[in-house]
Amino acid sequence: MFKNVLIIGCGLIGSSVLRALHNKKLSKKIYVLEKSKKNISMIKKIKTNCKFIKNLNHEVSNIDLVIICTPMSEYKKIIPKLNQSLNSKCLITDVGSTKKNIINLKNRLLDKKLDWISSHPIAGSEVSGPEYGNKNLFVNKWCIIIKEKKNKSKKINLLKKFWKKIGSKVIFMNPNNHDKIFSITSHLPHLIAYNLIKTAQDFQKNHKINLIKYSAGGLRDFSRIAASNEIMWRDVFFSNKDNMINAINLFIKNLNLFKKNINNKDNKNLLSKLINSKKVRKQIIQLRHDISKPDFGRE
Amino acid sequence: MFKNVLIIGCGLIGSSVLRALHNKKLSKKIYVLEKSKKNISMIKKIKTNCKFIKNLNHEVSNIDLVIICTPMSEYKKIIPKLNQSLNSKCLITDVGSTKKNIINLKNRLLDKKLDWISSHPIAGSEVSGPEYGNKNLFVNKWCIIIKEKKNKSKKINLLKKFWKKIGSKVIFMNPNNHDKIFSITSHLPHLIAYNLIKTAQDFQKNHKINLIKYSAGGLRDFSRIAASNEIMWRDVFFSNKDNMINAINLFIKNLNLFKKNINNKDNKNLLSKLINSKKVRKQIIQLRHDISKPDFGRE
Repeated sequence: MFKNVLIIGCGLIGSSVLRALHNKKLSKKIYVLEKSKKNISMIKKIKTNCKFIKNLNHEVSNIDLVIICTPMSEYKKIIPKLNQSLNSKCLITDVGSTKKNIINLKNRLLDKKLDWISSHPIAGSEVSGPEYGNKNLFVNKWCIIIKEKKNKSKKINLLKKFWKKIGSKVIFMNPNNHDKIFSITSHLPHLIAYNLIKTAQDFQKNHKINLIKYSAGGLRDFSRIAASNEIMWRDVFFSNKDNMINAINLFIKNLNLFKKNINNKDNKNLLSKLINSKKVRKQIIQLRHDISKPDFGRE
Repeated sequence: MFKNVLIIGCGLIGSSVLRALHNKKLSKKIYVLEKSKKNISMIKKIKTNCKFIKNLNHEVSNIDLVIICTPMSEYKKIIPKLNQSLNSKCLITDVGSTKKNIINLKNRLLDKKLDWISSHPIAGSEVSGPEYGNKNLFVNKWCIIIKEKKNKSKKINLLKKFWKKIGSKVIFMNPNNHDKIFSITSHLPHLIAYNLIKTAQDFQKNHKINLIKYSAGGLRDFSRIAASNEIMWRDVFFSNKDNMINAINLFIKNLNLFKKNINNKDNKNLLSKLINSKKVRKQIIQLRHDISKPDFGRE
């Protein structure tokens, strides 16, 4: 499918792309640009015969696909180097979690002769680093591709084919809708989980009580998401700022209504809220986004 | 250990107690008072030889342990019947999730000749009903016993022994501390999960976008907790009202700070929050409250 693929940033997602590319034999050669020595030694253990490069010099002029898997805050440093080194036949994509900011950035900084079509595979975990990568990470997961008018259909099709080959279900979106949807399904849940842990920590300090010891009733689920990579999530919160603020405001509005229901012992409104939530869980299980076993199948 | 045990309300928790009692042969006879015909036919399938009773009449005068496993809102109807039917040697306990209200209620309504020592096994799930019960549900889980000055030490020891026999780790607490601690580790996480689902539903309605389709990024975890039994959780929120309102207020205060950090792109404060959360996850895994496998071991 490709002669030369370059992965920039080889953590959880990058190393999963590497494993999937290698496993499906989708590229004759795979280059990896990774700064962390610890990560490089981990990646060597995977045995994919990838070639490590130290920077984007003339050596990468023959690359036909670049996949950027670094934190989003790195992109502005990477783009000028791509401009200097890539040829115009190359296709660039990224896996960043927000899209409006990325599209604006690359439209401002990327050389017009280069093609960058942005992707977002909905796959990840609370863990980070190449040791947690998995060649099947993308199997049956959504991958959003952001279509712009100027994109060449040949290159869009190539990118779509690539994600499908490694197992994803591909769907096209515009950056505005993407950022709105994921502000609710992903970014707000992460922020809420971080905020719950912070609230528990504050409560412990204020009341001098050890709470964590009794976390089994709900707090432990949130603690998983709140253990996610801090650099990635800082970048997400900052780059999806306006949608985050709207989402937080809507959440607080609903929280105040909940508080009012409790304060007034408003049986009817409280119960209808609690009953309605079950519908969403049912839908999620029907869509096979989660297993139906109680307690996530934990034992 | 006992001659005659009576379980009132035989859903997830009640049927797990039934299974554990039967399995460990802790009582010569087990009586079950359960109103739902559907539940009764489920419980019959477990084959524990329990005897179903229809009401608390003279038939239960020889009971030595009563375990109340109904929703907490039923207690005020049950207590007058206990007064009429039980003998003074009997020990009564319950498994309700809040304690101050229960202690006040039973101190007001229960006949002084009867002994009720309140319990709270920290075990449960998003599913309800006897079909989901499990004889090992309490194994290695905390069970909180609420000690009051007037409690006879013989009966406290008996109750402690009972929970330990079915696998729990027993700890004593006063009702105030209990309700404060679980307002944060259990009740607030449930409320937040319900509120997130409500927020996602509102967003769907306002923006006419199907969100649930893209729930894999975090929303699905919350949807599990938000599928919990609505009667149980209404009772919890109402009966722990004051602590719930304080917890919600602290949560909103932290949410507003989070919003401010995002709005000001306050790198330092945001990052320190995201990094600190990881410590709690580490503690929870060290305490073996959760498995260390990424993504709860889901595949």
